[in-house]
Amino acid sequence: MNNSFEVLEPSTELVKRAIEVRRSASALAQISDNERKLALFAMADSLASRAKEIVDANHEDLNRSLQEGLNQALRTRLKLDEAKLKESIEGIRKVALLPDPLGILQLKRELDLELILERITVPLGVLGVIFEARPDALIQIVSLAIRSGNGAILKGGSEAIYTNEVLMKALKNGLSSSEVNPQAITLLTSREESMSLLRLDGIVDLIIPRGSNELVRFIQENTHIPVLGHADGICHLYVDIAADLDQALRIAIDSKTQYPAACNAIETLLIHQDIADPFLSKAIPIFEQLGVKLIGDSDSQLLGITNCATEDDWATEYLDLILSVKIVQTLDDALLHINRYSSRHTEAIVTNNKETAETFLRAVNSSGVYHNCSTRFADGFRYGFGAEVGISTQTLPPRGPVGLEGLVTYKYLLHGEGHIAGDYSSGDQQFTHKTLPI
Amino acid sequence: MNNSFEVLEPSTELVKRAIEVRRSASALAQISDNERKLALFAMADSLASRAKEIVDANHEDLNRSLQEGLNQALRTRLKLDEAKLKESIEGIRKVALLPDPLGILQLKRELDLELILERITVPLGVLGVIFEARPDALIQIVSLAIRSGNGAILKGGSEAIYTNEVLMKALKNGLSSSEVNPQAITLLTSREESMSLLRLDGIVDLIIPRGSNELVRFIQENTHIPVLGHADGICHLYVDIAADLDQALRIAIDSKTQYPAACNAIETLLIHQDIADPFLSKAIPIFEQLGVKLIGDSDSQLLGITNCATEDDWATEYLDLILSVKIVQTLDDALLHINRYSSRHTEAIVTNNKETAETFLRAVNSSGVYHNCSTRFADGFRYGFGAEVGISTQTLPPRGPVGLEGLVTYKYLLHGEGHIAGDYSSGDQQFTHKTLPI
Repeated sequence: MNNSFEVLEPSTELVKRAIEVRRSASALAQISDNERKLALFAMADSLASRAKEIVDANHEDLNRSLQEGLNQALRTRLKLDEAKLKESIEGIRKVALLPDPLGILQLKRELDLELILERITVPLGVLGVIFEARPDALIQIVSLAIRSGNGAILKGGSEAIYTNEVLMKALKNGLSSSEVNPQAITLLTSREESMSLLRLDGIVDLIIPRGSNELVRFIQENTHIPVLGHADGICHLYVDIAADLDQALRIAIDSKTQYPAACNAIETLLIHQDIADPFLSKAIPIFEQLGVKLIGDSDSQLLGITNCATEDDWATEYLDLILSVKIVQTLDDALLHINRYSSRHTEAIVTNNKETAETFLRAVNSSGVYHNCSTRFADGFRYGFGAEVGISTQTLPPRGPVGLEGLVTYKYLLHGEGHIAGDYSSGDQQFTHKTLPI
Repeated sequence: MNNSFEVLEPSTELVKRAIEVRRSASALAQISDNERKLALFAMADSLASRAKEIVDANHEDLNRSLQEGLNQALRTRLKLDEAKLKESIEGIRKVALLPDPLGILQLKRELDLELILERITVPLGVLGVIFEARPDALIQIVSLAIRSGNGAILKGGSEAIYTNEVLMKALKNGLSSSEVNPQAITLLTSREESMSLLRLDGIVDLIIPRGSNELVRFIQENTHIPVLGHADGICHLYVDIAADLDQALRIAIDSKTQYPAACNAIETLLIHQDIADPFLSKAIPIFEQLGVKLIGDSDSQLLGITNCATEDDWATEYLDLILSVKIVQTLDDALLHINRYSSRHTEAIVTNNKETAETFLRAVNSSGVYHNCSTRFADGFRYGFGAEVGISTQTLPPRGPVGLEGLVTYKYLLHGEGHIAGDYSSGDQQFTHKTLPI
């Protein structure tokens, strides 16, 4: 990320728009589950009826990006053809049918007779979303925002500008035939505005970055608004002495090669020394065949790995068909390595020793800790959340894949009949503190 | 807050100590509920057996602070006599007996046959606590940290230095006879170190400030570590047209005068225009009698309030026997005012109109929204949480009074039998996504 990402103070115009989003979001927060559902269906219908216009706009973006020399990977992500649009529209309808995350009673307690405390889920308020390339992310995030009663201020990449503008117009048109004020969502168009978003403390409640590690890190370091998400995803797979070798290899291959550019792909393979020889003699030729470049520590080089790993390798997210390999003496060594280099995304162990597995699951404090399965399951859809805004590797909740549940907060309601605190301080009244059924 | 609060880079020595805390906290996270309980009892016993030494050290601090001209309010907070110490020790034993916040299974789901997802609560890791004056806060926070499996790096005010050091020695002594490594807690002694704490990203997971608004605001603006807590507490009470006048007055008096220096005391009273005359004719003489200075808008001045409120008053937390008063035309006007000036701590309505109450409870998005009771109930003990580290007015959870539950996070565990993601991408396998009983 270069210095073109200077964070300017928000313009009066931006603050005005943001306050409008906040006001509309406040009204949105109070409408019913069904009204929010209908708003999503209306957005889906509106996109469907404008499919040609959207795909045409995307063609323009694709053509321009080709002329501007955008790389193939980004152009693939930028593409929104009829099939992909249809899938996104279906996605909105699926989000519409997810259980309402709002108004859930989390706690009910009698503090005293007729003094009843409740805790219920409410929307966060306004989401600030900064995303790159993929215009389908806009559709997904808007549907999650509206479903969870939140407003959204969005900023897409300049490469997708026509697509995003047409999508936004269609989504707003959909909302205008629903109970949701279309001003609850807005699209920022200049790069300066995108970064000013980071200064909208008190108006924006959560920043959701969807893009490169550099973008995410820049955002985390330049805002006091909470940021959901993660920069690096350095995931580990530990093959224990008690591993089934075939199973370990299958899991290692899937974790590395099934989609190497994903954050939940592994970057480092840790292997117990007593199983390293048989494991690597099987694994090295297969990884070679799959085009995976193996980079090893000195012990693993003795067992046939030809590239030498440096200290930097343990801290590198390759996002590519490259895998660093380290031989460890014990489970504790594996845990020490993970504790030092993990980005707390997802780590897995392969072992048939229950006790070892339990130690690993207990000791590793990543947002996902797996036993005998691929790290690639770290995903909102695979977890059954229906949709996700991203994956958080932060310590505080929401952690891991974040769906609708992560876009809400709660408030405490207290219903009394004239109760005052003085009566309890004086001892005239006593709290009963009785948990009530929810 | 002046510039003496420059945030220096942490010294090597501080980083080393902090890593030691983190390592010990990691071990603490894995011991049993009962072992953590016993550690709290051991700390309580250790304090009890060193009561004289502690009270003597506090005498020294009190004498010094008198010579240094510390104001009476701060000296009262600094005081830790035998009775107060005994109460704090009882507090530790109460926290020991609170239900374990760790290892709670929050979600269990079959993703496919023998591929089981679980979400369980785990400690945050290391808490960074910056507190002023009150040495009993140290005792309370350490007991909450250890009970919830977290390490803690603490920094108290220089006015309480002897007391804090003796307390810390006693607490560590207690831990040394338990399964918890005493290095899980540490006390910083210089002001420079206190602020360097804000730069320990990746080692400290949560900053908990306990002090003045200025201190909290400075901390929020100078760290990328999440900060629990609040700066201002600007709470409102709205007296609706359908209020019972006597009840409204009782609640207003309690909310303002029961402990005016508390964050949950009200600063502004909003009164519906159609009830303002009868309400104020009763309220003005009583508030005067109680020593409360009323500052009103122009309408309320017509009804007998003599001091004139300026724009600044609506945004001021007096923490004193001062109350700003505004007459509103409608419920919506009250909501607009609250939406603009509230610090999202606690707001209350007095009304016998159910619909009006429901609108208010729904529309106000403070962490506490009350009906027909005093704002002074916003407190962890009164909510029945047993203890609290503070009150958060932030949007994201934990919000409101934060007890043990707010000091934990969660992780996802996935148990498989060799499952790989490729089988699901290819369509060979289908997710079952069955919610399992917890």
